[in-house]
Amino acid sequence: MEAYFDNSATTKCSAKAVELMTKVLLEDYGNPSSLHLKGVDAEDYIKEARNRICKTMKINENELIFTSGGTESNNLAIIGAAMANKRSGKHLITTKIEHAAVGSPMKFLEEQGFTVTYLDVDKDGIISLEELEQAITPETILVSIMYVNNEIGAVEPIEEAAKIIKEKNPNTLFHVDAIQAYGKYQIYPKRMGIDMMSVSGHKIHGPKGIGFLYVKEKTKLKPIIYGGGQQKGMRSGTENVPGAAGLGQAAMEAYENFAEKQNYLYELKQAFIEGIEEFEWAHVNGKTGRDSAPHIVSVSFDNVRSEVLLHTLEDRNIFVSAGSACSSNKPAVSATLQAIKVKKEYLDSTVRFSFSTENTMDEVDYCLEVLGEIVPVLRRYTRH
Amino acid sequence: MEAYFDNSATTKCSAKAVELMTKVLLEDYGNPSSLHLKGVDAEDYIKEARNRICKTMKINENELIFTSGGTESNNLAIIGAAMANKRSGKHLITTKIEHAAVGSPMKFLEEQGFTVTYLDVDKDGIISLEELEQAITPETILVSIMYVNNEIGAVEPIEEAAKIIKEKNPNTLFHVDAIQAYGKYQIYPKRMGIDMMSVSGHKIHGPKGIGFLYVKEKTKLKPIIYGGGQQKGMRSGTENVPGAAGLGQAAMEAYENFAEKQNYLYELKQAFIEGIEEFEWAHVNGKTGRDSAPHIVSVSFDNVRSEVLLHTLEDRNIFVSAGSACSSNKPAVSATLQAIKVKKEYLDSTVRFSFSTENTMDEVDYCLEVLGEIVPVLRRYTRH
Repeated sequence: MEAYFDNSATTKCSAKAVELMTKVLLEDYGNPSSLHLKGVDAEDYIKEARNRICKTMKINENELIFTSGGTESNNLAIIGAAMANKRSGKHLITTKIEHAAVGSPMKFLEEQGFTVTYLDVDKDGIISLEELEQAITPETILVSIMYVNNEIGAVEPIEEAAKIIKEKNPNTLFHVDAIQAYGKYQIYPKRMGIDMMSVSGHKIHGPKGIGFLYVKEKTKLKPIIYGGGQQKGMRSGTENVPGAAGLGQAAMEAYENFAEKQNYLYELKQAFIEGIEEFEWAHVNGKTGRDSAPHIVSVSFDNVRSEVLLHTLEDRNIFVSAGSACSSNKPAVSATLQAIKVKKEYLDSTVRFSFSTENTMDEVDYCLEVLGEIVPVLRRYTRH
Repeated sequence: MEAYFDNSATTKCSAKAVELMTKVLLEDYGNPSSLHLKGVDAEDYIKEARNRICKTMKINENELIFTSGGTESNNLAIIGAAMANKRSGKHLITTKIEHAAVGSPMKFLEEQGFTVTYLDVDKDGIISLEELEQAITPETILVSIMYVNNEIGAVEPIEEAAKIIKEKNPNTLFHVDAIQAYGKYQIYPKRMGIDMMSVSGHKIHGPKGIGFLYVKEKTKLKPIIYGGGQQKGMRSGTENVPGAAGLGQAAMEAYENFAEKQNYLYELKQAFIEGIEEFEWAHVNGKTGRDSAPHIVSVSFDNVRSEVLLHTLEDRNIFVSAGSACSSNKPAVSATLQAIKVKKEYLDSTVRFSFSTENTMDEVDYCLEVLGEIVPVLRRYTRH
C-alpha cells in the first residue's frame, strides 16, 4: 500500500485538469494577446478559468490576477501594497508563523525601510486579537495573516481580524495567505473583509506554476513584474493559458460536493488522531477538532528524529514532511514550532501528515500500523 | 488549408513535451523540496531539464534560473541587476526597439531614480556600435540589447556589443533578451560575453508559464520574488516541475538537427519574401537575407489597414500579427516601426508573418496566393 500524506507540500493534479491542459497545449495554443481566432480561443480559456474561480469565492472577474503560484501571489500582495501605499505609512503587521513566502518579502521590506510587527501566537498557533488591535497604528498600511498554518493546521480568526483592522484603521489593507485554506474552506473574501488573498494551484490538485491573487476592487497595488501590460498591467507576460485552465478546473472540482469532501477529510484526520493518541510516545500539536484545518496533523515523537522517521516511513511507501516541505531543502528550525513553544527536543522530532480527499481510511490505518511498528524500534536506537 | 504564421507570438507545444508534462502532473507530482522519494523524483525532472537546456548553450548548471516566462526573466535580469549594483552607478543602456518586457522594467527603474539611454537603430533596426560605445560611462551598470527584434527580425551585433561594453567598462553587465533568438541560433553566452540572457518556453514549442534566465557565475543579482529560498534564493516558489520538464524537452528538440531546421526556416522565409516582392503594393521591412532572423518577416501594405488584413486572412485560416502580439490587446503605435522610420502610413499597415519548422512550403504558397487575391480587393475599399 502507498499513503501519500504530503498533500500540503503538493497534490496530484486532477485528471480532468490535465486533459484540459493537454488540449490547450496541443490544439488551442494561441496567445491570448493575438487578435485572430486562435488568440480569442486562448483568451476564452482564461475567461472560463477566471469565471470558475471567481464563482467559488463570489468575487468579481476583475478582482482576480493570475500569477505563477502562491509565492508570487504573496510577493505581489505584500511588496505591491507596500510600494503603492508607502506615502500613507511604512508599518506592516504579520505573524510569527507565516510561510517564508510571506516572511521573506517582509524581511525585504524591512531592508527598504519599512517596520514590521510580528504577532505572537498561543500554544495552538492562534494569534491574539487584542495584540493585533494594539499593533495597528495610523501608519499601518498592511496586515498579512495566514488563514491556515501550513505546519500545524492552526486556523486564524480571519473574519474577526478583518473587523478589528477596519475599525482601528480603515486605510489598512488586509492580506490573507489562503494557500492552505482555499479548497478546504468556503471563503468569501468580500464578505469577510479581506482585501487580498493568495492561492496556489498545486495545493488543490491543480498544476504547479500557477496561482492567483484576489484583489478587491480599488485596492492600491503596484505590479512587481512589468511588460506588455497583460491583466490590466498588474501582471505582465503572456498568460499561462494551460496552467490557468488547469487551475480553473481544479478550483471547480474542489468546491463540488464541498461539505462532503470537508467532512471526509475531518473523518480521516479524526481517525488518524485517535490512533496517534493511543501511542504514549506521540503528541499532536495544536488543536485537533473542527476548529483546526481538516487536512493537517502535526505530530511530535519522543526520541525520534523527524528525518529518520520520514525516511523509514518512505521505505514503507508512506510520504510525509519533516516540518513543512516548502523550504526543507535548507534544514532550518521551524518558526511555527518555536512560536507555539513545543518542547525543545521536539523541534527536530516533528512530522507533518497532510491529507487529501484521494486518501483512504485504509491508508490511515496502514500508516498507524506502520508507526506502531517502527517508532518503538527507532526509539531504541536513539541516544538519550 | 491552415497557415499559422504567428509563431513569434506563440507556438504549438511539442507532443513529446506534453507527454512528459502529463507524466509529471499525474504520476511524478512530488514537490522537489520534499525530502522523500516523490520529492527526489520531482527534483530529478528539474535536474534533467536543467541539464538539457544547459547543454544547448554550454553553460554550467548553476547558471540557470527557471522563471515563469520571458517577461519575468527580463524583469529579474534588469530590476535584479539594477538593485544589486546601484552603488556602482545608476545608468542603464538599452535600445528603442526592445520588447515591452524590457522597456517597461526600464521605465520602472527611471521612476526609481535610474537614468536610461535608449539607443537609436538604423532603417534595418540595427544599433550603432559607435553610439553604444559613446553611451557607456563609468556609471553604466547594465546594458540590455535584444538578440532578435520580435517585430521585424533584425539581428543585433551581440558579440561585438559585448566586446565594446567590456572594453569600455568591465563592470557593466550585459543582458540579452534572446526570447526570439533562442532555438533559432546557436548561442553560447559565455563565449559571446553575455552575462544574462532571457528565454521563454512557449516561443520554442515549450509550454507557456515557464522560461529561464542564464546568469553567469558571480553576477551580482537581487531576486524580485522572495520566499522559501528555492533555486539558491534567486527564485523562490515551488518549482514548476511539469513546465520545466516540458521546456527541457522543447529546448533539446530545438537543437536537434539544428542546421537543417534553421535552413528550412530560411527557405520558407526566402520563398515568402520572393513572392511578396512580386507585389508592388507590399514592402518587406528590414533585412531579408541570412543576416536577418530565419523566422520573422515584416511586411507593410499600401493602403490596407493591418487589422483589416489580419481579419481577412483569418477568414482564410491564415494567422498573423499586426505588429507584435505580445501587447496587441492595447493598440499602440509600434516603437520598432517608428524607430526604423517606416513611412507614417505604414505604422498601422504592417503585418508580421512568423514561421516555425512545422510550417510548409505549401502554406507559404497558399498565403501568397490569398494575399494576391485579397489585398487588391481591400485596397479598393480603402479611402485614400
